[in-house]
Amino acid sequence: MNTSILLFDLAGVVFFAIAGALAAGRKRMDLFGVVVIGCVTALGGGTVRDLLLGSHPVFWISAPYYFWVAATAAAGTFFMGRWRRPAPKVMMYADAGGLALFTVIGFQKGFEVTQSYSISIIMGVTTGVVGGIVRDVLADEIPLIFRREIYASASLCGAGILALLVHLFGYGPLAVTISVCITLAIRLSAIRWKLSLPVLVLDDGVER
Amino acid sequence: MNTSILLFDLAGVVFFAIAGALAAGRKRMDLFGVVVIGCVTALGGGTVRDLLLGSHPVFWISAPYYFWVAATAAAGTFFMGRWRRPAPKVMMYADAGGLALFTVIGFQKGFEVTQSYSISIIMGVTTGVVGGIVRDVLADEIPLIFRREIYASASLCGAGILALLVHLFGYGPLAVTISVCITLAIRLSAIRWKLSLPVLVLDDGVER
Amino acid sequence: MNTSILLFDLAGVVFFAIAGALAAGRKRMDLFGVVVIGCVTALGGGTVRDLLLGSHPVFWISAPYYFWVAATAAAGTFFMGRWRRPAPKVMMYADAGGLALFTVIGFQKGFEVTQSYSISIIMGVTTGVVGGIVRDVLADEIPLIFRREIYASASLCGAGILALLVHLFGYGPLAVTISVCITLAIRLSAIRWKLSLPVLVLDDGVER
Repeated sequence: MNTSILLFDLAGVVFFAIAGALAAGRKRMDLFGVVVIGCVTALGGGTVRDLLLGSHPVFWISAPYYFWVAATAAAGTFFMGRWRRPAPKVMMYADAGGLALFTVIGFQKGFEVTQSYSISIIMGVTTGVVGGIVRDVLADEIPLIFRREIYASASLCGAGILALLVHLFGYGPLAVTISVCITLAIRLSAIRWKLSLPVLVLDDGVER
Repeated sequence: MNTSILLFDLAGVVFFAIAGALAAGRKRMDLFGVVVIGCVTALGGGTVRDLLLGSHPVFWISAPYYFWVAATAAAGTFFMGRWRRPAPKVMMYADAGGLALFTVIGFQKGFEVTQSYSISIIMGVTTGVVGGIVRDVLADEIPLIFRREIYASASLCGAGILALLVHLFGYGPLAVTISVCITLAIRLSAIRWKLSLPVLVLDDGVER
Repeated sequence: MNTSILLFDLAGVVFFAIAGALAAGRKRMDLFGVVVIGCVTALGGGTVRDLLLGSHPVFWISAPYYFWVAATAAAGTFFMGRWRRPAPKVMMYADAGGLALFTVIGFQKGFEVTQSYSISIIMGVTTGVVGGIVRDVLADEIPLIFRREIYASASLCGAGILALLVHLFGYGPLAVTISVCITLAIRLSAIRWKLSLPVLVLDDGVER
């Protein structure tokens, strides 16, 4: 199990590093900015998760190859992007892949430390979405997650299903695979058909 | 004393979750966004305090009911807000209540860990204002705290008075009550009469 | 060595507190906002470094004089700035000084904890640049670091050279001095001649 978890984790890092680098490219950032945003997107969620859980030092300091994988993927995206313009939706798909994988990883690490389902679900969602939030804050935008089609809710469903399966059958490859597929299916459907949750509009006319 | 501290803390969580949810509603966020912003506003200050003090895991992971209280209050605000538009100043008052309560809680936790008055004051102000700062950064605005009428200074006064009272008479319900009233009085006066501190204007004509 | 490290560290704190206070002044913030932004700029990089490395409580809680130095420098800048408008490039020079000094401090603390060159370099860059990033995010701007002339790359070169020198000759005042001079030279040249790295432009015409 541990090897497949590591592979999932590194695949998520690569997906998010690519998504972060492409977002940075839209803001006309230089090589260093692209690599930093790529690394922050790829490592940010897990870093916040480790800080909240009190696992220190954080994972990429204990295991620096995470950093190198993220930096290499972001730099590779930079050079690829200068050579040939990427297809429009690549960032969205890379982001969806990272979201699904990191939700599982975050749930698993939270469960190891706390044995609490609710905290593990929150850690799954945190690991999945925080990297993208920090990316958007650094690029000076309202985070996608708060405005657009279903995003974090996909991660929430994936983590919730995983909690149910772990409770019923114990942790195993099947539970993980089902959770990843559900998160992916919801997120990709939301992109495809622009699904969204109801919105609260409170323009109450008061000056802020 | 411990029970009343817990009640103060939970009341602060409810106030800030409402204020955060109302702020999110002004940005047309969906249910999930409103709950996340509500929880971040309610739990963010204490989380940063715990990380800085090295108390880990952070309080809402040790005691998940904090999270559930915040999420319920934010979701309740969402559904109330869709049903009936809230009166304009509700957010300001909820925010002022949370500020006063969290200042006391933060001071107390800082004092338990460090026994230093200056650090405890900083922890009080941090617990009081950080949730609102993160809320405003996520909503892509310059944090209210840095632009408007007296805000963090109210928390600073409340924490300073509390330090003085603790030094003179020891920690007790009276000291806490006086501190909460002072923070509230200053903040509400600032809202009512638009009081502000002097501003530094440095438009030095240099391109950034 | 320890005394000179302390002096370097405090000098960096003063430089960054001034730079932060001047940036806050451009946003018409009040005294409290200026002091907070000054302190965050001066203490933010080291705080994130300590959290990532798992050294807790963070340095300015163990040693509160860091906080007082930062707050005093920021308040002093506020009153100076109200009395006489500062020369345009003062902020840039203060920032460059802080960047060079904090890179060395961050590298040294990272090396003490992890003994890894790559992690120490990342800690050097993190300590150098994070304060300025948080400052710009709070002031609602795209962080300078991601858009302008060579900035973080100067810190990266300084930290890289330091790693090389430490590897070859061990840690010593000469290695530190050379690293500081290189970071400063690169950053000041970048300001003077507007040097920049190649930029990735990916305006792929897709709506976000």
